Amino acid sequence: MSRNLQPKPPTIKDVAVLAGVSMSTVSRVLNGSAAVQSETAERVRRAVTQLDFVLSASARSLRPGVRSMTWGLLVDAVESHYFSTLIAELDRAAQDHGSTLLVSVTQKEWAREKHLIKEMSSRRVDGLFVVPANGDVLGERSRLSGAPIVYVDRIPSGVVADVVTFDYYKAMAEIVEELWVQGHRRMAFIGGEVDTDPGSRRYAAWNDVLRRHGGTPDPDLVSVGHLVAGTATEAVAGMLRSDRPPTAVVTTTGLLLLGVLRAIALEGADIEAACTEEIDSAFLSPVPLTLVAADFTLLVSNAVELLTARIENAGEPPTTRLLPTGRVRLDPLRSSTLPS
Amino acid sequence: MSRNLQPKPPTIKDVAVLAGVSMSTVSRVLNGSAAVQSETAERVRRAVTQLDFVLSASARSLRPGVRSMTWGLLVDAVESHYFSTLIAELDRAAQDHGSTLLVSVTQKEWAREKHLIKEMSSRRVDGLFVVPANGDVLGERSRLSGAPIVYVDRIPSGVVADVVTFDYYKAMAEIVEELWVQGHRRMAFIGGEVDTDPGSRRYAAWNDVLRRHGGTPDPDLVSVGHLVAGTATEAVAGMLRSDRPPTAVVTTTGLLLLGVLRAIALEGADIEAACTEEIDSAFLSPVPLTLVAADFTLLVSNAVELLTARIENAGEPPTTRLLPTGRVRLDPLRSSTLPS
Repeated sequence: MSRNLQPKPPTIKDVAVLAGVSMSTVSRVLNGSAAVQSETAERVRRAVTQLDFVLSASARSLRPGVRSMTWGLLVDAVESHYFSTLIAELDRAAQDHGSTLLVSVTQKEWAREKHLIKEMSSRRVDGLFVVPANGDVLGERSRLSGAPIVYVDRIPSGVVADVVTFDYYKAMAEIVEELWVQGHRRMAFIGGEVDTDPGSRRYAAWNDVLRRHGGTPDPDLVSVGHLVAGTATEAVAGMLRSDRPPTAVVTTTGLLLLGVLRAIALEGADIEAACTEEIDSAFLSPVPLTLVAADFTLLVSNAVELLTARIENAGEPPTTRLLPTGRVRLDPLRSSTLPS
Repeated sequence: MSRNLQPKPPTIKDVAVLAGVSMSTVSRVLNGSAAVQSETAERVRRAVTQLDFVLSASARSLRPGVRSMTWGLLVDAVESHYFSTLIAELDRAAQDHGSTLLVSVTQKEWAREKHLIKEMSSRRVDGLFVVPANGDVLGERSRLSGAPIVYVDRIPSGVVADVVTFDYYKAMAEIVEELWVQGHRRMAFIGGEVDTDPGSRRYAAWNDVLRRHGGTPDPDLVSVGHLVAGTATEAVAGMLRSDRPPTAVVTTTGLLLLGVLRAIALEGADIEAACTEEIDSAFLSPVPLTLVAADFTLLVSNAVELLTARIENAGEPPTTRLLPTGRVRLDPLRSSTLPS
């Protein structure tokens, strides 16, 4: 990962010099104190606009009294087990820290994420957790945000930043390895976007393990770019109806797993399924299922540790934490009703 | 529903009189304008505190420029199909209205909800959607909130307010009626809280339909107060293992339905199931399933219509809208594997 070569952002001192006031006056104006003459405040605001200055958390922490005790969280969406669990855990953690969590949905769009980072900043959150959409390659996020950011789940491209995510490469590699050892030679891969994180890590692991074993992934058994469950169902149903069906289907998200299981149930297929995310209805699976178990308490405690350190202006270099995952094996509850 | 007899809240005029300034000065201070002398601003703030004054949206709309273009949403939790669908739909609607949606989680606790209403107000949301926790019987919410509130899903007790919810009484009554007509005489009821809305509406419908048919609900087949899926599983498993098992199980939420289906799968029971909420894995049900289909687009468009009217200070009396629901019937995808 290369260092980010953006110009040095303006400091509170630059604003003070341009406005011809003291740094503490700038600080008072930016913190919304009314104890500043209106024309002075106006001059400070003009300087801020001119310099495109954003009040950083480190500057704000010079005034401990101005903490808003609010954290922001930006996620793609809320209609997944993954994100809803993340929100619930972060909400509990925020409460434990005496803070309130405000959540907004980016719909995985970079323009919307930028807008929401500015919105959250203008509401003076102390810090932001961001599941980053793809798009920021010049560190624009941290320039837009008046608060420190910790990235969750997805590694942002092109910036050196605090990131907490699960080790999806290892999780997928272990699943594929295990299926290989069990004798599966015709595994299908059903994925979402594979050219961006974390899909790219999972897809790389899938390919690496198969190649390590001298196997060539059969292109007929790889279907990616799925954004909804319905297309995954169609893809798997097509594979199952073909002359050379898979003996196992590996997928990446809970949403796609539901699509895969629907195809398996529709076709009455007797194969294995595996997924790098959990779903709460896994026990209803008609076939044996291997899921990656992600510890959200661990994810959140790491993210909170990094964010609170930044809010308190700790000078550690940015770090990326890859958290370990576990695995769950589920057999159908009513195996007697499965076809032999 | 009786009219709410709270004392008349203080107005912006009361604040102006107490502070000895004009109403527009009060407005400027409350809207964060710096164009006010600091000692004047301080005097206004003291008067606000003394009167426990909260800036209402109608007062704010005197200054059209101060709209924050932000809506707040308070929900119990995010780990359910119901709430995550609600959030997603409201987020889309907010975007269509050029507004940003901020979401926070009350965990169904009244103290937390009060705190979050104040938090959202201090962030100057234009309006709030609230799935109300139980506790407010004196209209405290609207006094705490600087913005108009529309209640969603759950009817708050003791206040006359704008409410949008599905007609859960009718939805449950239709399900029970249909099962009765199909010949089911031993129906089980698995519920959450039945003494508060909307659980109370569903439970009343269950009892009413059975009594209308001259049936007496068997107390052994009624199990309520479930907050997690696990206890619902235990309750249903116990009923299925008893001498006189139910021929159908009716439940209220997606969370409880998963618990019910787990018991049915574990016991290999060949019965009917029904629920007044949908789940996205319903197609995996091992038994025939009837679900109430709720149109969230309809719910959200009604809620948004009421809230935007309040924000624009339309003087309509508060209204409660009971929205119709539909029904979905699912048969197991692999009926050939079910026991005969």
